[in-house]
Amino acid sequence: MSKKEKDEQLKLRRVAIDTYRENVAYMHRDCDFYRAEGFQALNKVEIIANGNSIYAVLNVVDDENIVKPAELGLSEQAFDQLGLETGFPVSVAQAEPPPSMDAVRRKISGERLMPEDFFAITSDIVRNRYSKMEMAAFLVASGQTGLDREEILHLTRAMTESGDRLDWHEPLVVDKHCIGGIPGNRTTMLVVPIVAAHGMVMPKTSSRAITSPAGTADTMEVLCEVNLAPKKLHDVVRKHRACLAWGGTAKLAPADDILISVERPLGIDSQGQMVASILSKKLAAGSTHLLVDIPVGPTAKVRHMREALQLRKLFEYIGDRMSIHLEVIITDGSQPVGHGIGPVLEARDVMQVLNNDPLAPSDLRQKALRLAGRILEFDPDVRGGYGYAIARDILDSGRALQKMQDLIAAQGAVKETIPVGQLSYEVCAEQSGVVTQIDNYILAKVARLAGAPIDKGAGVDLLKKLGDTVEKGEPLYRVYAEYRTDFNFAKSQTDTLNGYQIGRPEDVCKSYMEF
Amino acid sequence: MSKKEKDEQLKLRRVAIDTYRENVAYMHRDCDFYRAEGFQALNKVEIIANGNSIYAVLNVVDDENIVKPAELGLSEQAFDQLGLETGFPVSVAQAEPPPSMDAVRRKISGERLMPEDFFAITSDIVRNRYSKMEMAAFLVASGQTGLDREEILHLTRAMTESGDRLDWHEPLVVDKHCIGGIPGNRTTMLVVPIVAAHGMVMPKTSSRAITSPAGTADTMEVLCEVNLAPKKLHDVVRKHRACLAWGGTAKLAPADDILISVERPLGIDSQGQMVASILSKKLAAGSTHLLVDIPVGPTAKVRHMREALQLRKLFEYIGDRMSIHLEVIITDGSQPVGHGIGPVLEARDVMQVLNNDPLAPSDLRQKALRLAGRILEFDPDVRGGYGYAIARDILDSGRALQKMQDLIAAQGAVKETIPVGQLSYEVCAEQSGVVTQIDNYILAKVARLAGAPIDKGAGVDLLKKLGDTVEKGEPLYRVYAEYRTDFNFAKSQTDTLNGYQIGRPEDVCKSYMEF
Repeated sequence: MSKKEKDEQLKLRRVAIDTYRENVAYMHRDCDFYRAEGFQALNKVEIIANGNSIYAVLNVVDDENIVKPAELGLSEQAFDQLGLETGFPVSVAQAEPPPSMDAVRRKISGERLMPEDFFAITSDIVRNRYSKMEMAAFLVASGQTGLDREEILHLTRAMTESGDRLDWHEPLVVDKHCIGGIPGNRTTMLVVPIVAAHGMVMPKTSSRAITSPAGTADTMEVLCEVNLAPKKLHDVVRKHRACLAWGGTAKLAPADDILISVERPLGIDSQGQMVASILSKKLAAGSTHLLVDIPVGPTAKVRHMREALQLRKLFEYIGDRMSIHLEVIITDGSQPVGHGIGPVLEARDVMQVLNNDPLAPSDLRQKALRLAGRILEFDPDVRGGYGYAIARDILDSGRALQKMQDLIAAQGAVKETIPVGQLSYEVCAEQSGVVTQIDNYILAKVARLAGAPIDKGAGVDLLKKLGDTVEKGEPLYRVYAEYRTDFNFAKSQTDTLNGYQIGRPEDVCKSYMEF
Repeated sequence: MSKKEKDEQLKLRRVAIDTYRENVAYMHRDCDFYRAEGFQALNKVEIIANGNSIYAVLNVVDDENIVKPAELGLSEQAFDQLGLETGFPVSVAQAEPPPSMDAVRRKISGERLMPEDFFAITSDIVRNRYSKMEMAAFLVASGQTGLDREEILHLTRAMTESGDRLDWHEPLVVDKHCIGGIPGNRTTMLVVPIVAAHGMVMPKTSSRAITSPAGTADTMEVLCEVNLAPKKLHDVVRKHRACLAWGGTAKLAPADDILISVERPLGIDSQGQMVASILSKKLAAGSTHLLVDIPVGPTAKVRHMREALQLRKLFEYIGDRMSIHLEVIITDGSQPVGHGIGPVLEARDVMQVLNNDPLAPSDLRQKALRLAGRILEFDPDVRGGYGYAIARDILDSGRALQKMQDLIAAQGAVKETIPVGQLSYEVCAEQSGVVTQIDNYILAKVARLAGAPIDKGAGVDLLKKLGDTVEKGEPLYRVYAEYRTDFNFAKSQTDTLNGYQIGRPEDVCKSYMEF
């Protein structure tokens, strides 16, 4: 091969393969660059064109229908990221490892990192210079006791500044966040209309479910559009003081999104990473006041009061230093909240509460009022202790329902009501007695196996809660699915382990207060 | 979509994309499975067919030329692994995370793991159930002080038993291993012929360079074939008592190979993982006696005598418990060994030593004799302290050269001599004085930038070594490249930092003895 051939460039080509958050470059095995540079499949390469560059993992192709030897293919996301047209000449080079991996290696060997290290790491992550395994190395090294409080603060600050930051030009922008783990816990869809009806600004963006059977965005989507373009979102908020949208379109704390895409499948998390993740998102979203809900229970994420208190201190420490007004509320996480688990069933619960329907689940109503009350007290004009009563008035008077209807109309109501899944069965008590335990984890799993959140009508409808008396053979809950396969998956789970325990009244799982 | 459609199977298709050690499955976005199962790009899926199953990462395709909606595509390695024909009906399911990830999470939270945990982990790794990021999580959690000595022993045992084990049916099967980091350190190609000429069995399989400018397999390949099929390898060993082959074809301690493919790009290693990695390979290869070379120097892998001693103890502890006769030799790693760095140049050095050429680098000769002497003393008939003299006799008499020529002929000599790279330049002293330091790391980097080991003739030829007197403008070393781009890469490195320091005689870098 002559020098000339080697120095030539390749023609850019879009390969219609979706590789999600990982950029992939496709190079033909007979490409001159390939042998010359000593590339190897899975090497990281830098693609340079037009003064711009992106990083990608290399796949070697043996089929000219995918890429020709004179072409460089990019997966859909990578192609979009480079933002050039098909046929554009590009150069390819071995990518140097991201410079901040040095800091990660120092963390692995137990050193304490400085603010500039965390900025370098998040900035390399956002520039797509980290592979999944490099991120996993960072997460494991900085998990558990890997970071001290100051380092968690530096990480929070670096993640906050890794993307855009919203400014609502309002003195008080409130938000709430639950650390998760409790199925059916859809309080956000009640808190937002209550608080906004009071006149507070609450531009709520939520995630879709990743490991749970429904996120607020999945459930809200049963009622209206949640994928709002930034302008639309701002218009809704300006007019109605609130929104209930999906947060995926904004580029807020993007380093956090990317790290989460590694953390979740690994099933690892640490208090430090959780706090940095939550607070960076809220700060980037322009929140000034935040209420954090930590449910505690034997099958919740946080299982002991001691652990909840530790986490509360950490939230407070970082929140104070990042200048966000933050309060933590510790709630009962001993069983699912409400009756429904899954988008359609949870939306039904929420609308029953807003409609003051006598069938509405009272625990969902109580919890939402308690949270809304605390948020209302962020208003300097609300006297301490009066928030709950104000929230209740707003809900009982129908003003919360009206606000919700306004938000649904503004975001774009769905055309047709989505029904529950057409296939269903009941899980019944094997003995008579009192419900002593309901396992959050198993109920969430059953709802997911049944198809939630992808199949909106799939899920679980709880007919009995902790402390309820049941007769042998009486139904405990009903499972809904849209497809037979999912129905069977859920069935084989509930046949083995249904998540309920029936026993004597004195064995009923105590709420967190008594742990 | 009806139940029937969903339960249908997909037709297997080979997608001509090489994804190296990562299995990738390609599914069309319009595939019925795709939406129904809630798959997402980068999810792990299990592909089931014919009672067999493999795991793969999912990529979503929007081009029917790559896969059609009714097909399931597999990358080349994954297709081979499943071992079925195009068109074979396969089912796809969400893969459960590997069960042993629970053990990894326990390790992350600081628990001590049991032998069965390590067996479960290595067995899941070998079955391709771990993603790169899961492996990174395991490596980081078990790096540094993550594993105690007993756990390192369990890991070594689990990795040894993760694949095939050779049995040579000989009472004494010797091997040597250098922990690396010193360019030009090609003693293996001298030790093997010396030891085999004495009649000992030394079936040496080596790696290719991964981060260094040449591995023994790369250098031996300058002289003869090194990709030997298992039968051929055995024939050579049976006839000549030795071989000098590439070890990549055997399935020895495959868990180690897979973990290394994550460890290297991350640039992390720990003493425990190094020891487990080296010993599992040697044990699986059927070695009974092993000499481990630990070079120590300011720019070597091991920089302090204290660290070398720690590592020695760990090798001895694990070696004794795994019943391999193991000795550790600590050598001078203060500068590259020999003159050449890069396959052709190193092969030249080796042949000069074997030919007793007066130009042969004496440090390479001395080191090889010292190592060979220690190995010869594994022979019960050799009196302690006499090994060196026997090795020298074998070398001086030409018997080592003869053995090397036999091995080359048996493995298959190359048809044509490979020349050094046609482009070259000299790096010269900027002042007069004495060479006080040579940086192993920078010299290795220059040789790699120049094209080694892919371009066999590329590399560095050292003209001055530690303690040599130089005049200003006198050449220190010569760089060879085959391509202009590589030449320029190397040049721009040596223009900035050439790895040599010139100073006063009293500042010459001391060998490890005096650290």
